[in-house]
Amino acid sequence: MQRRQFFHRALLAGAFTAAASASVGRAALAGLPEPVMATGPETAPPWTPPGVTGAGRPYRPVVTLNGWTLPFRMNNGVKEFHLVAEPVVREVAPGFEVNMWGYNGQSPGPTIEVVEGDRVRLFVTNRLPEPTTIHWHGQRLPNGMDGVGGVNQPAIPVGKTYVYEFEARRPGTFMYHPHADEAVQMAMGMMGFWVTHPKGRHPLINEVDRDYCFLLNAFDVEPGAKTPNINTMLDFNIWAFNSRVFPGLDPLVARLNDRVRIRVGNLTMTNHPIHVHGIEFEVTGTDGGPVPKSARWPEVTTDIAVGQMRQIEFIADEPGDWALHCHKSHHTMGAMGHDAPTMIGVDHRGLVSKIQRIVPDYMVMGERGMYDMKEMEMELPPNTFPMMAGHGQFGPIGMGGMFTLLKVRADQAPDDYSDPGHYAYPSGTVAYEYPGPVPDAHRPPAASGPSSASQALPQVRRPQGHAHH
Amino acid sequence: MQRRQFFHRALLAGAFTAAASASVGRAALAGLPEPVMATGPETAPPWTPPGVTGAGRPYRPVVTLNGWTLPFRMNNGVKEFHLVAEPVVREVAPGFEVNMWGYNGQSPGPTIEVVEGDRVRLFVTNRLPEPTTIHWHGQRLPNGMDGVGGVNQPAIPVGKTYVYEFEARRPGTFMYHPHADEAVQMAMGMMGFWVTHPKGRHPLINEVDRDYCFLLNAFDVEPGAKTPNINTMLDFNIWAFNSRVFPGLDPLVARLNDRVRIRVGNLTMTNHPIHVHGIEFEVTGTDGGPVPKSARWPEVTTDIAVGQMRQIEFIADEPGDWALHCHKSHHTMGAMGHDAPTMIGVDHRGLVSKIQRIVPDYMVMGERGMYDMKEMEMELPPNTFPMMAGHGQFGPIGMGGMFTLLKVRADQAPDDYSDPGHYAYPSGTVAYEYPGPVPDAHRPPAASGPSSASQALPQVRRPQGHAHH
Amino acid sequence: MQRRQFFHRALLAGAFTAAASASVGRAALAGLPEPVMATGPETAPPWTPPGVTGAGRPYRPVVTLNGWTLPFRMNNGVKEFHLVAEPVVREVAPGFEVNMWGYNGQSPGPTIEVVEGDRVRLFVTNRLPEPTTIHWHGQRLPNGMDGVGGVNQPAIPVGKTYVYEFEARRPGTFMYHPHADEAVQMAMGMMGFWVTHPKGRHPLINEVDRDYCFLLNAFDVEPGAKTPNINTMLDFNIWAFNSRVFPGLDPLVARLNDRVRIRVGNLTMTNHPIHVHGIEFEVTGTDGGPVPKSARWPEVTTDIAVGQMRQIEFIADEPGDWALHCHKSHHTMGAMGHDAPTMIGVDHRGLVSKIQRIVPDYMVMGERGMYDMKEMEMELPPNTFPMMAGHGQFGPIGMGGMFTLLKVRADQAPDDYSDPGHYAYPSGTVAYEYPGPVPDAHRPPAASGPSSASQALPQVRRPQGHAHH
Repeated sequence: MQRRQFFHRALLAGAFTAAASASVGRAALAGLPEPVMATGPETAPPWTPPGVTGAGRPYRPVVTLNGWTLPFRMNNGVKEFHLVAEPVVREVAPGFEVNMWGYNGQSPGPTIEVVEGDRVRLFVTNRLPEPTTIHWHGQRLPNGMDGVGGVNQPAIPVGKTYVYEFEARRPGTFMYHPHADEAVQMAMGMMGFWVTHPKGRHPLINEVDRDYCFLLNAFDVEPGAKTPNINTMLDFNIWAFNSRVFPGLDPLVARLNDRVRIRVGNLTMTNHPIHVHGIEFEVTGTDGGPVPKSARWPEVTTDIAVGQMRQIEFIADEPGDWALHCHKSHHTMGAMGHDAPTMIGVDHRGLVSKIQRIVPDYMVMGERGMYDMKEMEMELPPNTFPMMAGHGQFGPIGMGGMFTLLKVRADQAPDDYSDPGHYAYPSGTVAYEYPGPVPDAHRPPAASGPSSASQALPQVRRPQGHAHH
Repeated sequence: MQRRQFFHRALLAGAFTAAASASVGRAALAGLPEPVMATGPETAPPWTPPGVTGAGRPYRPVVTLNGWTLPFRMNNGVKEFHLVAEPVVREVAPGFEVNMWGYNGQSPGPTIEVVEGDRVRLFVTNRLPEPTTIHWHGQRLPNGMDGVGGVNQPAIPVGKTYVYEFEARRPGTFMYHPHADEAVQMAMGMMGFWVTHPKGRHPLINEVDRDYCFLLNAFDVEPGAKTPNINTMLDFNIWAFNSRVFPGLDPLVARLNDRVRIRVGNLTMTNHPIHVHGIEFEVTGTDGGPVPKSARWPEVTTDIAVGQMRQIEFIADEPGDWALHCHKSHHTMGAMGHDAPTMIGVDHRGLVSKIQRIVPDYMVMGERGMYDMKEMEMELPPNTFPMMAGHGQFGPIGMGGMFTLLKVRADQAPDDYSDPGHYAYPSGTVAYEYPGPVPDAHRPPAASGPSSASQALPQVRRPQGHAHH
Repeated sequence: MQRRQFFHRALLAGAFTAAASASVGRAALAGLPEPVMATGPETAPPWTPPGVTGAGRPYRPVVTLNGWTLPFRMNNGVKEFHLVAEPVVREVAPGFEVNMWGYNGQSPGPTIEVVEGDRVRLFVTNRLPEPTTIHWHGQRLPNGMDGVGGVNQPAIPVGKTYVYEFEARRPGTFMYHPHADEAVQMAMGMMGFWVTHPKGRHPLINEVDRDYCFLLNAFDVEPGAKTPNINTMLDFNIWAFNSRVFPGLDPLVARLNDRVRIRVGNLTMTNHPIHVHGIEFEVTGTDGGPVPKSARWPEVTTDIAVGQMRQIEFIADEPGDWALHCHKSHHTMGAMGHDAPTMIGVDHRGLVSKIQRIVPDYMVMGERGMYDMKEMEMELPPNTFPMMAGHGQFGPIGMGGMFTLLKVRADQAPDDYSDPGHYAYPSGTVAYEYPGPVPDAHRPPAASGPSSASQALPQVRRPQGHAHH
């Protein structure tokens, strides 16, 4: 049931795959592969390439978080893909759309998925209002296919299609992005994932049960606006996984004791420390290749630098709903003005409208912290998303941005990627309220400060220890 | 003598430990452990748990820099701790107090110190003006104890006490912090350290002679104000170790040839490269576990990402006073306006008052750099701390923020953590003034620029080398 | 021919080296070594120390990108160097000069290059308008030579010369910089490289064919100004390799299959992920020492934290012109105002002059991205550098800042560091225009948005896969 719903959510336009399986030869003669488009923001399930039936595929396909994998056409032994660079509208969160630039209907573009040794031909059509190129980040390839405009090739003019061709020589985790006016084009959302699966067994590449991937990106969209400010260097307010934010992000799902791989690349302007609750993981590979086993560190947070890719792996051996997020606290908040003054300790009842005359986007962040915002009825500008959001089985979650859940369930079917819903906690395993009275501590009120306070306090009586005899 | 003074500085309020050793059973029946409070900013010496005498403790306790370790109560084999989340006043530096939120009288909260395999019960009382939770960062635990508000538990309402309970399964370096309105609550100072010592010998965990720990945190407090701006994402002006800054930070002390471990966690919004002068170290563990020996890098600076913990280790085999600091130069400066225009190269004599009409917080950063500020008599706003400060045996140090000294002495007693004072340099080992005249270089004045200069210069006569024959 | 030109570009003032080889004894008696100065911004070729002929030198010298190595004087077995701290004018890019502080005529100062076990004496003359010191970052040395003003020594007064002396105990990659008013002095450009070559073969230090080094630094210079704003913490606009930016940076040159080492240190205020196209590399050493082989990761991008040094190594086995750059996209752009509003999607024809009345430095970043700026005739403020620049064989490159090329050629002579010019691409190896028509995709216009769009689209017909049967 859930699987069917999930399948239904994969809205890919066009009829490319049918054409590919039926009429490769003719299509090749006829010209370019018809571009496949996707406009929905949901996670598309992994698909099976044409000509493959049952479990015969030589690799476990990746699942692109809130994204999809681009179908290809076989043409005389070459895998042909067609990317279309173009303006798109991305639903960043439900009710919040942003004008971006992307590929094939979305930002990020679709994931390219091939096998080590594949010969790959990529047609890139430029429907942007300015020239572009694609750099195939991390690949071994002829210098003229590397995509740096001016250096390795002319930039692709508006309206034209360029052809790249090379062999996918190294298995691993890669990405693609423009290398012409790239600061602007990446700030607008142009990027995509690339996974090259190993041909056969590889001593340093584990077979996994789930293989997820996403890119980290950031946008600066003024509240109420729809187009990113492309000149922002640091003060972004949309921190996203695949141009999408919590609570609009799908969960990552695993069956208990699955080996899970998550591939993450960073195309923002700052490091993102990706933190997973509940388990420890290792970084098993970078865009430079597999990390030798002797060199791996145990981590619960891996810092992903700009332009880097990290593939992390772990056994999902703890059931539950585990947070997975960037550990920079502002990156798990929604869009907001950073100009509002501190109100903590100030009684603001009745003062809000006065403040708003001075700071129009002031959003009642009060003298008691910001927790109350989660439940408040607030008048938000049109086309924005709540500053903190999401609602769990225990109340408001109050997160946004680069935050989602890793849902581990004993009864999740092996190839089922659908959301299993809230975790059913075994009785007695949730933090609970202590019903009794709380004893007072003998201490001065905090406001009186440490220096004066220390005068009034009895000194602690300590047991004798070996260090102080 | 110094040891006595050091002991005297540990001002812990309440009489918890006495109660704990005398009347565990009754206290357990009676209800919550009485919360232990501390309000002084000094480094508390390690303490011996109740019931342990002499050197019988199975671990070397950690020393929390300008902080303390929370006593516990044994209750039917369970170690019980009581944390109270509440507003506090932290003395960030002598004469500079900031309104924070913390635990048990201070920010950061006290360090939790247990042994692998311990069953731990934590009572958390919320005396903040808004709901909170605690996330036990890095721990293996039941999903319902993980502390993400809304997802894993309801947030703890104002005035209530919640109970967390789990086994400390993994030895290592951890932290705790809120996971409800967490950006605000961490910006206000809510965080604490957690160390789980290994049960018995562990092949990857060295026994050390000194074991220090601290957290990196940052605040944005306008000059003259007392409460952090909780909306700041990047432009912090207080960069702290354990909510405390140089020259208010205690030194880290070691006996010559001690093996020293320093555990550092980062809860700011940016990476901090922690640099130690004089020695090389290795990162021997993260919050994910011990780093295998084959995977360790030699370093003099380790970059600690947000949400990460690093434990570094070295042999303190070089005597002296060694700087230990974040290598981002602005993070070792005091609070200041970053708006002052460059005056280098401008003669500003007599102009200061005019500038101050335009830039009121302009602080005479002059045409000759800022070194002279260290000695100047300046009128600072009340409740602020000098921009650059500290005075050593050779004059002004001119540092602030994330900076302290590692003091290595041949004659420091094994368990003595008291400040040994300035290093007594052996004669002839300090950089000294050259008494003779300095020859002129034949070169153009710098102001004339490189291009024109190169015309006028004789070309260097070089010896013949193999590269240019 | 090219070698001669290259040699000619090394404009070192003074006649130090001749004096050194002819009259060491007398010079030692006479006093300080005469300081050697350099004012040109070109990469100086490696030089041969006095007394060494032919290939007899026991190490492969480093090549400092757009910099030079400081000659020394032998004095009774001690290598003597003379550094002069002073104001300099650095040509950051052709036509763009900045007032900096540096050493011996340039910023950064010259590279110090010695051999493990060398006794080194460094005379430091202070010609700045304020006190300074030098910290020999990463070295093992007596505490009194470590250079922290106030702690380890008095700061060097204006006009005075101080003497540092120690043994270069560890081979490796180091740097030097002030540790007195250091935030200001480093913001003004004071820093330099230090390489200690191993004495004989070292099991973890490879012999390489090319050994490059440079420092990462950043400046905030308002358009039209000449002096950096020393108070800037984050919003820098000049992102440089060795105080120099593309297109003013020389290429790194290698012969096909050379083993290449690049040593990079970071003295900015943020991490820089250094990315090399076309090959994979390993980090083989840090300022803490050589990285054990078991601990090395394959990378195409290494994140260099502030205060860290990384030496990367690879075999240059792919011919061509490969980009080498910081992967933060704003760090490969030129100086610009970050205040210009987004114009993407807005037709601005005829509006520029109106905008410029409000935003005077607005530079026509248009509704079609910023690619067109590369070809536009623009009136730039005097003494600035184009926002994006460089022109390759295929047109405008549109990069600036921390960007240069790694040029790998089969026919580059072993010790030839001169620019070989553009790569001659073998025919058929460059991305090319597809001449045929581009098929339309059946999809809604992007502007209509994903939600409504999905209604109108035919659902994709997928082949049956094992995951969805």
